[in-house]
Amino acid sequence: MRCGAGIDARMVDELAINIDPIQAGGRLTADAMKAVIAYGDGYSVCDNCRKPNRLDYITKPPIAEFHKDLAAWLNMDSARVVPGARRGFQAVAHTYAKKGDPVLLTSLAHYTEFLAIEEAGGIACEIPANDRYIVTADAAATKIEEIKKQYNQAPVLLFIDHVDYQYGNVHDVRGIAKVAHQYDIPVLYNGAYTVGIIPVDGKSLGADFVVGSGHKSMAAPAPSGVLAATAERAGEVFRTTAITGDVTGRMFGIKEPEMMGCTLMGVTLVGMMASFPHVKERVKHIDRELENAGIVHEALLSIQGTKILSEFPRKHTLTRIDTTGSFDTVAQSHKKRGFFLSSELNEKGVAGIIPGATRVWKFNTYGMTREQATYLAQVFVSIAQDNGLAIA
Amino acid sequence: MRCGAGIDARMVDELAINIDPIQAGGRLTADAMKAVIAYGDGYSVCDNCRKPNRLDYITKPPIAEFHKDLAAWLNMDSARVVPGARRGFQAVAHTYAKKGDPVLLTSLAHYTEFLAIEEAGGIACEIPANDRYIVTADAAATKIEEIKKQYNQAPVLLFIDHVDYQYGNVHDVRGIAKVAHQYDIPVLYNGAYTVGIIPVDGKSLGADFVVGSGHKSMAAPAPSGVLAATAERAGEVFRTTAITGDVTGRMFGIKEPEMMGCTLMGVTLVGMMASFPHVKERVKHIDRELENAGIVHEALLSIQGTKILSEFPRKHTLTRIDTTGSFDTVAQSHKKRGFFLSSELNEKGVAGIIPGATRVWKFNTYGMTREQATYLAQVFVSIAQDNGLAIA
Repeated sequence: MRCGAGIDARMVDELAINIDPIQAGGRLTADAMKAVIAYGDGYSVCDNCRKPNRLDYITKPPIAEFHKDLAAWLNMDSARVVPGARRGFQAVAHTYAKKGDPVLLTSLAHYTEFLAIEEAGGIACEIPANDRYIVTADAAATKIEEIKKQYNQAPVLLFIDHVDYQYGNVHDVRGIAKVAHQYDIPVLYNGAYTVGIIPVDGKSLGADFVVGSGHKSMAAPAPSGVLAATAERAGEVFRTTAITGDVTGRMFGIKEPEMMGCTLMGVTLVGMMASFPHVKERVKHIDRELENAGIVHEALLSIQGTKILSEFPRKHTLTRIDTTGSFDTVAQSHKKRGFFLSSELNEKGVAGIIPGATRVWKFNTYGMTREQATYLAQVFVSIAQDNGLAIA
Repeated sequence: MRCGAGIDARMVDELAINIDPIQAGGRLTADAMKAVIAYGDGYSVCDNCRKPNRLDYITKPPIAEFHKDLAAWLNMDSARVVPGARRGFQAVAHTYAKKGDPVLLTSLAHYTEFLAIEEAGGIACEIPANDRYIVTADAAATKIEEIKKQYNQAPVLLFIDHVDYQYGNVHDVRGIAKVAHQYDIPVLYNGAYTVGIIPVDGKSLGADFVVGSGHKSMAAPAPSGVLAATAERAGEVFRTTAITGDVTGRMFGIKEPEMMGCTLMGVTLVGMMASFPHVKERVKHIDRELENAGIVHEALLSIQGTKILSEFPRKHTLTRIDTTGSFDTVAQSHKKRGFFLSSELNEKGVAGIIPGATRVWKFNTYGMTREQATYLAQVFVSIAQDNGLAIA
């Protein structure tokens, strides 16, 4: 089936259990799918844009209300939607970092934080995770002192991923933010894997900024995301334009340069909005998600030689696993080599594993039913058994 | 009908002839609508992302091929998709303008160009349009000389809107680019109103960069757009990342900092791709569009006191009109005041005029059938007649 010349219709999430590490939290809700159909056209949310002509002031559809609700839900003072979490990083990095300024992130930080720092001219300084792949407040304090010695100034900004993309581990945001604030360093909470998945209370965590990803964790189309700020910091990153035309004397009202004016003018925003009530509800049920993940982990760990590299017990459904001692031993002599695993998974209706991966890989059980989790657990064990691996 | 809590389904383009100035070129094609349904989920285009893990290398769906086709179609050497034309402006301004650098644009330039310059720390210098609202090469040359005297340096970048958003007039890009190149100033061609509407040959026009808008003129969902570059300039704006992790030594491959890595990971990109064959075809038929516009213009000009402020004959379907001497005289004594016009248009199945506007306003006839244009022409005349205005 095609949806345009040369473009096959995508049916991955309709036909399979998809355990792709980055896709699980971004599957649309039924309401978002309806919104996508109703608001597909280009500037679809601009029908009722009136003065002062800014996206977050539009009341029909209720975009203004959504912005307020979003900020309140994150326990922050104001929020803007952005084309992906990375554009939130960019706006904040550009506001605080000038050429040569040290900026803190962690040894588990996402590449888009590095790019945001690079774009702003800053220097990326990683707080090292410990040997259990956890970033602690002590490590942050030590790193800040090292930076002060090396650069003769404190870092100008700190990025902290509450849950990192590599292990899905939870890091001590509250403790790290407390340390950062002792040096007056603004704290950007990267919630790409948490906002929309677990409850996030920005102020209680000590965040000056909370960034979330619509397409990664808020059941929204790409690119979408949120950047929320405290009242103290909102005036800095959401400052309004000050430029004028030298001939016409034109000014540009309340447009915000870090946002480049309006951001998500159509389907992406309404998709986020339509999913929002469901997302607010689902974060309350992370326990159920972790139970499902646990069923799958137990099965995987029963396959001898398999290790879970993420922290245990799991606090997030994104998990990093090492099957060098199990599935990879099969790959050594299998006629399909490493491709046997993804191939057998696909045959049994499981998608989302990188073809060929049998050593260290990641998966995400988010959004499954109990029945799907139980089935997935059985699938892993049966593939192991079929290929002669021992089950504990 | 609702498509989520509190969100009414949008049916403007289904139920009315929509003459909104910014929406006409962004209505989805049927193929794009199918694509939106098939690729609504978050990271929907990432199923087959393999090394080197960059959006424009994905072959299924055929994103890599689309990037090549897009560049070739614009007669440029490479292209990237961006979340809106403004993000293309931002990337280019950030590459060339440093704090205090003068940057050229025009007195008819879009506000997002100003924001891009402001963000980069540049100074916005407007080339004045002439009294017919046209920007000429002579005016550009004069302005460059003025800037050189005032700032002791040539401008570092020039933005030129081929068709401006205020009058929908066509400006002398080729002549202006020629002047700019005499001073080694890179030229950004803003095709937000042209790419997808009229044929655009970037190199022949002298553009170093061509920027287009998906949601404004390429029948794509928002936010989407294209940034294309010549081979000479591509290495500057699409340079790859050079930052490293100081602890881990991590590097980030061929990710591009001005793009912030990948840009449109789902519905927006596939929408653009699905519409692309139709968009390539439709630009060949701008004559038909201008004929339709002409039918409407003739009717409007038959209403005594009405002036068209855009250049004549029209070369684009976006038109600025002054009805201070016609519809606004009705508004003075009408019980609905200025709202009578949009209200009567709505009753007759025409949407897209700002409620209350009866003096200077804009409309766009793009994408209409001949029958719709004829009907729209009759509607304007009949509203005029019903309200006692004289018809020539």
